[in-house]
Amino acid sequence: MTNAPNIDGWTCPLPLRDQPNILIGHGGGGKLSAELIEHLFYPAFANHLLQARGDSAVLALAGERLAFTTDSFVVRPLFFPGGSIGDLAVNGTVNDLAMMGARPLYLSAGFILEEGLPIATLGGVVERMGAAARVAGVQIVAGDTKVVERGHGDGVYINTSGIGVIPPGVQIAPELARPGDMVLASGTLGDHGMAILSVREGLEFETVIQSDCAPLHGLVEALLAAAPGVRVLRDATRGGAAAALNEIARASGIGVVIDERKLPVNPATAAACELLGMDPLHVANEGKLVAFVPPDQAEAALAALRAHELGAQAAIIGTVVEAHPGVLVGRTGIGGSRVIDTQVGEQLPRIC
Amino acid sequence: MTNAPNIDGWTCPLPLRDQPNILIGHGGGGKLSAELIEHLFYPAFANHLLQARGDSAVLALAGERLAFTTDSFVVRPLFFPGGSIGDLAVNGTVNDLAMMGARPLYLSAGFILEEGLPIATLGGVVERMGAAARVAGVQIVAGDTKVVERGHGDGVYINTSGIGVIPPGVQIAPELARPGDMVLASGTLGDHGMAILSVREGLEFETVIQSDCAPLHGLVEALLAAAPGVRVLRDATRGGAAAALNEIARASGIGVVIDERKLPVNPATAAACELLGMDPLHVANEGKLVAFVPPDQAEAALAALRAHELGAQAAIIGTVVEAHPGVLVGRTGIGGSRVIDTQVGEQLPRIC
Repeated sequence: MTNAPNIDGWTCPLPLRDQPNILIGHGGGGKLSAELIEHLFYPAFANHLLQARGDSAVLALAGERLAFTTDSFVVRPLFFPGGSIGDLAVNGTVNDLAMMGARPLYLSAGFILEEGLPIATLGGVVERMGAAARVAGVQIVAGDTKVVERGHGDGVYINTSGIGVIPPGVQIAPELARPGDMVLASGTLGDHGMAILSVREGLEFETVIQSDCAPLHGLVEALLAAAPGVRVLRDATRGGAAAALNEIARASGIGVVIDERKLPVNPATAAACELLGMDPLHVANEGKLVAFVPPDQAEAALAALRAHELGAQAAIIGTVVEAHPGVLVGRTGIGGSRVIDTQVGEQLPRIC
Repeated sequence: MTNAPNIDGWTCPLPLRDQPNILIGHGGGGKLSAELIEHLFYPAFANHLLQARGDSAVLALAGERLAFTTDSFVVRPLFFPGGSIGDLAVNGTVNDLAMMGARPLYLSAGFILEEGLPIATLGGVVERMGAAARVAGVQIVAGDTKVVERGHGDGVYINTSGIGVIPPGVQIAPELARPGDMVLASGTLGDHGMAILSVREGLEFETVIQSDCAPLHGLVEALLAAAPGVRVLRDATRGGAAAALNEIARASGIGVVIDERKLPVNPATAAACELLGMDPLHVANEGKLVAFVPPDQAEAALAALRAHELGAQAAIIGTVVEAHPGVLVGRTGIGGSRVIDTQVGEQLPRIC
């Protein structure tokens, strides 16, 4: 069988070589993003640490394993139900560290401000960042501010980079999933993306959909204590759970089968998705992870997730199979099945 | 005597509390930047590591001292004589690590791209980054890409964060300057800023002014080998050497006196500055540092700098005095003297 990632590379509707300009979708975490990474960034920066494709790079320094990661945030609006760009900037990077099993310690914060931004708005964003850092137990220890002219930014863009320490014995990486592993989701899917979309488009539903933005390292710590054999963790941000599961399927060279009836989805999010023709599997989360766990530890893992306030609605959603390596298959409610691909771009631009 | 930074805080022509919106000058590395840091970022992020005011935070991890820093780059144009935004993004962060005496090891790279950017342009930038990283001996190990709509960016913004290791025994910090120390500049001042200005404004001089963009950790290593007592290092970027020297004067609570006749300035840069009414002391550099060295090691330090290709035009430019703490004084060619203040904003926006 031909290697799946290559097929994707060549059959993508808008491959790099035929598309001379950057599209919004290049930032969507889907196939266009993957093409940029594969064909442009990897060749230029060539090194095995970058190409490990983890949510953080793992650095061996002074006998410790450090996790190191970076993320830029361009979400609009700056404030939304359940969070702000400041909360995202802290929790997004904390979560990238947590997905390697690391204890997050230190963050940097780089601001690109647009001329004319009310200082009070910046103050509100920065206050939320500080509060989120305190909740997550991390320190923001380095910073930088640049200002661009009116019409060359959008209020505030924030980059955070983070450093964490991976405890001895923890071995989590996207290529470690094995046939037989159980796939868990830590809670309801699609809430962040639908919260942003609702407020941006002025949609009104009966219930205000809240972003799930939260720091996940406490949940990961509880999970690892109960199920030390956890093989892969990924937070299901841009591209949603479908993108995360596809990436893992490709990195590990295994197939993933999920039971779509078991996917936890908030009723309000489900209703909004149905109304708008969107699939919660493709919608971004900012406080949910998927975990690949050896079968004998799956029940303990589920119990540990459910015992944590951020994992109360966790569920076993699928299994790893030897068949169809690199491909995610969903079993539907009516007994059929479908291939669930990564999207080309992003249903919702600038959601983080 | 009242503490100088507080006076600045309250007498600034555009203090934070009277100015409701972000101005271009808030990104200039001058007084407006300092006000944002002091009154907005420090209170929100309160921790002693951030408030140490070094070019990098110093983190104690596993018995090592790590330097950690971040910088965003919004320079325009993206390519200029002597460099590109890609070279700056690598060397700027490498230099912030080097200014703590650290050996730079790992960088992250966060891109904010504007929809419509030619992929070939991005490819050129990223190639330059990769080449600069190889020259500096650092690895770009983590990355992120976001895309914003047309009219909400300016082609490419880049954030780099960096990690380095500070060798045992090295103790460099902005508050360590002492009366009697000698002040050295590693080479000609103002070249980067004038290179950018020339190309941006279409100015033509007899000689094309080249940016001095370069990684300085090799120069620092040579300097520390010859003069292990070096107390303070700072790369003279935004705000130029004047801003760097003023910051050190305030942080150390000492006065700095420089002999303006001894400042190394390239003839082409001097001519351009004179034509445009600018002072090379206030113009940005991207490959020059100022060093504060105990008097008995000053000659050895100077010799070490001059023996390195990036320090061939190094000079002893001044001394540290007990008088006028927090204030930089320039002795002029005609025997007079003047207070050289930090600028409020920036003569040249978006030079890095």
